[in-house]
Amino acid sequence: MELDDITISRAIIEKFSKDLLNYLDVDVAIVGAGPSGIVAAYYLAKAKKKVVVLERKLSIGGGMWGGGMMFNKIVVQEKAKFILDEFEISYECYDADYYIADSIEAVSTLCSQATKAGAKFFNLMFVEDVRIQNERINGLVINWSAVETSKLHVDPLTISAKFVIDATGHAAEIANTVVKKTPRMGPIFGGMLLSGRAVAEKIISTDVLSV
Amino acid sequence: MELDDITISRAIIEKFSKDLLNYLDVDVAIVGAGPSGIVAAYYLAKAKKKVVVLERKLSIGGGMWGGGMMFNKIVVQEKAKFILDEFEISYECYDADYYIADSIEAVSTLCSQATKAGAKFFNLMFVEDVRIQNERINGLVINWSAVETSKLHVDPLTISAKFVIDATGHAAEIANTVVKKTPRMGPIFGGMLLSGRAVAEKIISTDVLSV
Amino acid sequence: MELDDITISRAIIEKFSKDLLNYLDVDVAIVGAGPSGIVAAYYLAKAKKKVVVLERKLSIGGGMWGGGMMFNKIVVQEKAKFILDEFEISYECYDADYYIADSIEAVSTLCSQATKAGAKFFNLMFVEDVRIQNERINGLVINWSAVETSKLHVDPLTISAKFVIDATGHAAEIANTVVKKTPRMGPIFGGMLLSGRAVAEKIISTDVLSV
Amino acid sequence: MELDDITISRAIIEKFSKDLLNYLDVDVAIVGAGPSGIVAAYYLAKAKKKVVVLERKLSIGGGMWGGGMMFNKIVVQEKAKFILDEFEISYECYDADYYIADSIEAVSTLCSQATKAGAKFFNLMFVEDVRIQNERINGLVINWSAVETSKLHVDPLTISAKFVIDATGHAAEIANTVVKKTPRMGPIFGGMLLSGRAVAEKIISTDVLSV
Amino acid sequence: MELDDITISRAIIEKFSKDLLNYLDVDVAIVGAGPSGIVAAYYLAKAKKKVVVLERKLSIGGGMWGGGMMFNKIVVQEKAKFILDEFEISYECYDADYYIADSIEAVSTLCSQATKAGAKFFNLMFVEDVRIQNERINGLVINWSAVETSKLHVDPLTISAKFVIDATGHAAEIANTVVKKTPRMGPIFGGMLLSGRAVAEKIISTDVLSV
Amino acid sequence: MELDDITISRAIIEKFSKDLLNYLDVDVAIVGAGPSGIVAAYYLAKAKKKVVVLERKLSIGGGMWGGGMMFNKIVVQEKAKFILDEFEISYECYDADYYIADSIEAVSTLCSQATKAGAKFFNLMFVEDVRIQNERINGLVINWSAVETSKLHVDPLTISAKFVIDATGHAAEIANTVVKKTPRMGPIFGGMLLSGRAVAEKIISTDVLSV
Amino acid sequence: MELDDITISRAIIEKFSKDLLNYLDVDVAIVGAGPSGIVAAYYLAKAKKKVVVLERKLSIGGGMWGGGMMFNKIVVQEKAKFILDEFEISYECYDADYYIADSIEAVSTLCSQATKAGAKFFNLMFVEDVRIQNERINGLVINWSAVETSKLHVDPLTISAKFVIDATGHAAEIANTVVKKTPRMGPIFGGMLLSGRAVAEKIISTDVLSV
Amino acid sequence: MELDDITISRAIIEKFSKDLLNYLDVDVAIVGAGPSGIVAAYYLAKAKKKVVVLERKLSIGGGMWGGGMMFNKIVVQEKAKFILDEFEISYECYDADYYIADSIEAVSTLCSQATKAGAKFFNLMFVEDVRIQNERINGLVINWSAVETSKLHVDPLTISAKFVIDATGHAAEIANTVVKKTPRMGPIFGGMLLSGRAVAEKIISTDVLSV
Repeated sequence: MELDDITISRAIIEKFSKDLLNYLDVDVAIVGAGPSGIVAAYYLAKAKKKVVVLERKLSIGGGMWGGGMMFNKIVVQEKAKFILDEFEISYECYDADYYIADSIEAVSTLCSQATKAGAKFFNLMFVEDVRIQNERINGLVINWSAVETSKLHVDPLTISAKFVIDATGHAAEIANTVVKKTPRMGPIFGGMLLSGRAVAEKIISTDVLSV
Repeated sequence: MELDDITISRAIIEKFSKDLLNYLDVDVAIVGAGPSGIVAAYYLAKAKKKVVVLERKLSIGGGMWGGGMMFNKIVVQEKAKFILDEFEISYECYDADYYIADSIEAVSTLCSQATKAGAKFFNLMFVEDVRIQNERINGLVINWSAVETSKLHVDPLTISAKFVIDATGHAAEIANTVVKKTPRMGPIFGGMLLSGRAVAEKIISTDVLSV
Repeated sequence: MELDDITISRAIIEKFSKDLLNYLDVDVAIVGAGPSGIVAAYYLAKAKKKVVVLERKLSIGGGMWGGGMMFNKIVVQEKAKFILDEFEISYECYDADYYIADSIEAVSTLCSQATKAGAKFFNLMFVEDVRIQNERINGLVINWSAVETSKLHVDPLTISAKFVIDATGHAAEIANTVVKKTPRMGPIFGGMLLSGRAVAEKIISTDVLSV
Repeated sequence: MELDDITISRAIIEKFSKDLLNYLDVDVAIVGAGPSGIVAAYYLAKAKKKVVVLERKLSIGGGMWGGGMMFNKIVVQEKAKFILDEFEISYECYDADYYIADSIEAVSTLCSQATKAGAKFFNLMFVEDVRIQNERINGLVINWSAVETSKLHVDPLTISAKFVIDATGHAAEIANTVVKKTPRMGPIFGGMLLSGRAVAEKIISTDVLSV
Repeated sequence: MELDDITISRAIIEKFSKDLLNYLDVDVAIVGAGPSGIVAAYYLAKAKKKVVVLERKLSIGGGMWGGGMMFNKIVVQEKAKFILDEFEISYECYDADYYIADSIEAVSTLCSQATKAGAKFFNLMFVEDVRIQNERINGLVINWSAVETSKLHVDPLTISAKFVIDATGHAAEIANTVVKKTPRMGPIFGGMLLSGRAVAEKIISTDVLSV
Repeated sequence: MELDDITISRAIIEKFSKDLLNYLDVDVAIVGAGPSGIVAAYYLAKAKKKVVVLERKLSIGGGMWGGGMMFNKIVVQEKAKFILDEFEISYECYDADYYIADSIEAVSTLCSQATKAGAKFFNLMFVEDVRIQNERINGLVINWSAVETSKLHVDPLTISAKFVIDATGHAAEIANTVVKKTPRMGPIFGGMLLSGRAVAEKIISTDVLSV
Repeated sequence: MELDDITISRAIIEKFSKDLLNYLDVDVAIVGAGPSGIVAAYYLAKAKKKVVVLERKLSIGGGMWGGGMMFNKIVVQEKAKFILDEFEISYECYDADYYIADSIEAVSTLCSQATKAGAKFFNLMFVEDVRIQNERINGLVINWSAVETSKLHVDPLTISAKFVIDATGHAAEIANTVVKKTPRMGPIFGGMLLSGRAVAEKIISTDVLSV
Repeated sequence: MELDDITISRAIIEKFSKDLLNYLDVDVAIVGAGPSGIVAAYYLAKAKKKVVVLERKLSIGGGMWGGGMMFNKIVVQEKAKFILDEFEISYECYDADYYIADSIEAVSTLCSQATKAGAKFFNLMFVEDVRIQNERINGLVINWSAVETSKLHVDPLTISAKFVIDATGHAAEIANTVVKKTPRMGPIFGGMLLSGRAVAEKIISTDVLSV
């Protein structure tokens, strides 16, 4: 039997819009799907949090694909090795405390494991603004990133989130927006593999206590 | 102890150049790391072939990340379902013969499994030309894709391969180059998940007989 | 009471996806929402056909907004005057057989009336290809136009239509695609106000006889 | 009889230049033809004010065409519903206090009704500067927007207006220009549907008292 | 007394639209205001022909401003020297049969004298197409060149001309358009100073005989 | 006899380099060849000053070619009429104190007369910096403008001038450079026709007294 | 004593224009200053031919600077080793018949030696066309390459040459131009180090016989 | 015997990676390979320092190739003449204290001699940041410049250096980065030929004393 392209179109639209409606209201929204954002999403999902990651680019993984200077290898030090083990990423030891891995295996495996753990990724979306109520960030104003690159004048939509993590790295886009709007309760900065884990733990423990 | 950035730089350069030297001579070179190229690489690697995949973009996966119209879902029909099972990609049944999966989980898992199976990916490289000896394609002329996008005048290097697979999809870049150069023994076209599997099988069986 | 932006987001996603699913299968699909496409859509909708118009740009109306050389007036001759009357567009007589109208009133009124008559417009979408079965065009392969302008590698979706009208004007994009694929049953070319009406009539009468 | 293209050219040039000369001196000049600017123009025109709207783009309507995230629907709350009724825009009730409409019908109908009410739109023009006499804004310095996008060095022309409304939204271009020039009597900011109505009412009542 | 900018705007619009209406119907339309087009216009105007020159750029003069390789001098040979004398352009003798002039004086003086002789120039306009009736070119379809450079979708207007001269030089834009449309009576090619004179003489004599 | 292109090349290079060497040391250097710069150059040249005008663009005349909003007419008031008379530019009276002229005739005639009066123009050059000695501007640092637009890394040359006039209009490029370098003896701003005359008179009288 | 920038400017203009005039008439003109063009120029200059090399880029050396894939090394085989010796370029032996050198030393030394041998380079110039008389190429039509990249409309100049060598490599720009113009006596193609030497020898010997 | 392209590829990768590993730890790192950076590198290399020069462009030499205003000559004054002698660059005397040379011979010879003296150049790399430990700059964070021009998100590598020289000229990129990070021990600025020599001498003498 032939593939029926109308059935396929119907399936994709139905499932995607159901997912998008479902994720309009989450526990944690992570901005940026680099290594740090993916790791945070993984641990939060494993802790049964409802977590969504918003990524501006078509693909997930940020700068990790390119290794160092386009030489596609990454190096991890002793204290972060447990993350490679947790995600089952292959590595070799190099010089006592350093472990070297293939950047392509590393980043695709991080992403694969995070999705299997239950984290939800929306790619091709960017965050225009944060949503603030009573001096606390509790959501994000989002749009298709193609709207921005095409310089289209199109309004955004909004999602609600108990916690927001800025994992855009050097750019720190969300943190900068917040600083302009309110001095209190800035988002927590992500960074590398370990910081993704650290942020996740902080939110998990906070949540147990206060929500 | 602090991360020593010079040691990290040394590790990355050493390992990458060792890999690149190792893969100057392969059994199969695949051009384009979309779903079809990844699947072919996976089955070839599992059959113990030395296989390299060359991808022009920073990330692996081609157009699969974006689902249909940026709605990040993919649909697979009955006869290709075994590939989802082989790679352990989650899916739901939709309407009898159709299975729907998350495009991000699907593409990252394909890539993760192919690397673990032993396929080697070089991203950020593109193929300028094919290498032909005695009217048979037996290698590729490659360069950094950033050389092309930066419009730099920089010469390429060459890799040797017993078989070449054109998995650039609609573009069919390699096939077009070959047609201009020699009428015989064009590369084998990849397409979707199933065709990736089919091409791999063909090469594996050919190889048993003739190499 | 404040506007609840999450409720608004939910309403927009729910209603849009319901509409999009509904219009995956139509009587007539019109490509291009210039004056001719709008007029055809209006008459078809009034004849109770299920009609969808796909427009690449953000706004509906094509080149009519700019009048002649950015002087925002349009001129209509005697035999097309009945369309101005039908849509209730104001005009003045100029030189016996010529009627002059404000281009902004004309194009916004055409669009307003067509939507009220029941025609459905999807803006920001473009047609990548036609769908052909048994040598007959019976659908369109569509994508967001922002995918094209952003040069993203993202796959399209498909809609099914009993008739397809090419109202892209000089570009004649659909007709050109068809000519490459099949020699029979090309789409019907639109042109100006009158031709929009003529095409609509032709399809309406055909439909009475054969569908 | 054939259309005589020279007669058409003559008609367009004559009528447009007559209109442009007529609108060099108006009661109210509105900068920006988004929803708020259109609504203000409508109510002012109904109150018999001579009103001109200057729009930089080819089409009228701003960001309303794209709904939310390119999903072409708009949502209006209870207190603004009367505007939908006034303009005869179709809507459905969604969740108690929210009304949902088709964005294409909404924006084209707003524009159609405003032109019929007597508001004059010049599209493809942008405002380079404001005209100030005795510390009061009383006009605008305008040019073709294509002069700006083509980076041509071409001087502007001037129009005189008793009142100026900045309806450029977030950009607030005119207000920013004024702040640099004079601290008193800044233009009145437009915003959404309701604010367009509010600004119109304010000017209408002011006018009764003071002009 | 202060300059009244509204009076100035009114004067410019009134006079320009009067001129444009007047030149919708001419004896000769010249496309391209390089040296050859200017010289042709000059001689035709002196012979009392109603002549209009359409130039795509902001300024008149084409490539003559830049001399050779941006060294702003021009060289004229013996047999064309009479044109320098006719226009009163200064020159020095260089090597027997060659005369050298300042390119800036040369091109501005050509243009100044042509306008004084009665030739009418419209700059910032380009020719989209020719107008053909009974297999004879008898007019031009024109638009603002800023419409083209801004990639705006705006319709053109038309002017009527007994003769059309293609003085676009190497580009030969009009001639190419004509060849596609009709094999007979292509426009007459301009080239350099002498050819401008030659074309003018040919039209003047033709005119005496046949119009 | 044929034109000998080598002789022509030789003539152009010889004469241009002789001129350029000659104008490395001038009385007055004017930056910008808009109407104001041309008028100043004319009066200074008539007063026997050695004057050079440096223009970034290919053509001379700045924004005057485009009239107002691309309607190619200019308006001059009573007190500047004498300049139209001095340069022999045709005009008509419009409304008591206003005179209207063709912008193309006006700007080409200004330029033609200024060159005949002895002013030297170098087009296609821009001013990178001013030359300052003893806190007084006494020269300009120049380069080809094509070096800047091509983003080439090429060093400039220098010319010496007793006076420098900034006639770049709104941009006031030279004035801004000077303000950064030295607080005293800024260049004199040009503006319109009259200000060009005024600046010229000021320099002529200064010169008589002090140089 | 301070550097006098006016004297420097004078020296540069005087010497450059003297050189340019001198090289309007040469024995051999080489188009493209890659390795092959430089080597040909070197041997021709050593044989006392008057030789000029025209290079489009700012720097001399073409693609040799970048080695292979931006790894700045070059490899030369046995039979071309004598050129490394002739130019005194350092190298190491790699694998029997291969010699490896630093690409930066190699290309800068080639260029340095060629200039010392008497070859004249003009950089920043490109060749618009060839000059043909009696079906034989005997010169080049040249312009500044910045004229082309800035899309300026500026005419070229011409140089006369007894022989023309196309050393533009893959582009073969001159050869393509010639093929369109005349079927006989195409330019001789350059390629790599050895071919540069070969072409030089061919011209030197030809010259002895026939000129 | 034919050139074996795989052997060539192998040789280039092996030697380049060996060099790059070797230069991860140097005495002096120079940023920018203009004349000043090359001269500094030459003298440091002659003094037996391990010196690396990092250049963003494909070619070495910066703006010296273009002479003044693309006239490819350079002028050197009396006190710097010894550098021309040291490098064996040809020159002529012009006006007492000025010496004029061919810019192409000058820059290629500077580069050729510096490499022969032992300085190592890496072209096509740029410096993202400096490495600071204990408030002292002791290294550079580098990347391929094609990564930057292609706007790729790829991480850098690091090199260690006892001294860093900023020879980026006007840009002073490294100095600016340092000022932002630490107030002490900024890098030493390079400038022209003489300053390159001066900086080299300063580091050589410093080194004798303190390292």
